[in-house]
Amino acid sequence: MVGPEIERLMQLLSRLPGLGPRSARRVALHLVEKRETLLLPLAKALSAVGDSVKTCSVCGNFDSVDPCSICADPRRDQTILCVVEGVGSLWAMERAGVFSGRYHVLGGLLSALDGIGPDDLGLGRLRARLDGSIREVVVATPATVEGQTTAHYIADFLADCGITVSGLAHGVPVGGELDYLDDGTIGAALRARRSF
Amino acid sequence: MVGPEIERLMQLLSRLPGLGPRSARRVALHLVEKRETLLLPLAKALSAVGDSVKTCSVCGNFDSVDPCSICADPRRDQTILCVVEGVGSLWAMERAGVFSGRYHVLGGLLSALDGIGPDDLGLGRLRARLDGSIREVVVATPATVEGQTTAHYIADFLADCGITVSGLAHGVPVGGELDYLDDGTIGAALRARRSF
Repeated sequence: MVGPEIERLMQLLSRLPGLGPRSARRVALHLVEKRETLLLPLAKALSAVGDSVKTCSVCGNFDSVDPCSICADPRRDQTILCVVEGVGSLWAMERAGVFSGRYHVLGGLLSALDGIGPDDLGLGRLRARLDGSIREVVVATPATVEGQTTAHYIADFLADCGITVSGLAHGVPVGGELDYLDDGTIGAALRARRSF
Repeated sequence: MVGPEIERLMQLLSRLPGLGPRSARRVALHLVEKRETLLLPLAKALSAVGDSVKTCSVCGNFDSVDPCSICADPRRDQTILCVVEGVGSLWAMERAGVFSGRYHVLGGLLSALDGIGPDDLGLGRLRARLDGSIREVVVATPATVEGQTTAHYIADFLADCGITVSGLAHGVPVGGELDYLDDGTIGAALRARRSF
């Protein structure tokens, strides 16, 4: 009904996160309507990302240079490494602007259900980076079962390296109402309470 | 922080309907992660649409041929024309699969607020299509103030052509609960009640 080109575009758009068949159709229509100002620039931007962006061979970040601009930046703290699940977590840390060290992207989390074991996360590659200059590894995996299992596994795995392995604190999110928080978070925040 | 290519991609994605800065970021990350299976095919599909899809010079539909496959289809009823706001409405009518005539896309609705007057809708082009073979025009503009204003304007505009001008019926949507319907719709459905 809409022709094979638009049909194909809708089908690909519906595979994007957060877009179902209906929103994919709406987006496709919008793109065809704004051919010059949106569709063609987007096609170009996608090709540019496809051509230039690669995975950093040191940390696993995405960038147009390898090693990535974070790994290559001499002003970043060379003694501390933050281990994250994926590049999305790395971006979130960078947006927060509070971490000045470098990263290590796991590319996943341990998950018995999905059959992801320690070998799949390439932890040997992480260990190989601990060459003496690094004195702390902050494991910033998510506060989910898989995330915390992975964090504990990494802490054990690096136990004999003689470096500090730490994790992000659990507690009340800044701006968070207690009413809407789950019991586990409130418990963690109370146990980790600090004196003013 | 993410490099100029990914930054540009995020910025364009956030201009798509239904996507804000956060979901654009999520989509961009997903695309970079699925470079071979999603990003490059999507870039190709966008270019294909950009290269091939044009506006039908007869009805205003989008298709890779001109006149579009609906206008060119000899099996479609040549005596009835459905006037729609945009190609999205045309697609919706086609999905419903109940209309066998041809279309006329206005490309907008009368709107004093947005400064869209009769001249902007190209109603002369609609009138020029009424060459004697067409005996009915169904105005299928949305049931909004602008949509109904436009419908009444078109009915007046075509009053002296000697053809039937009709509009879609208002009533309870199929599957709709009365509880959630506004009073205007219930009133319209009661006034247009039918005997079994």
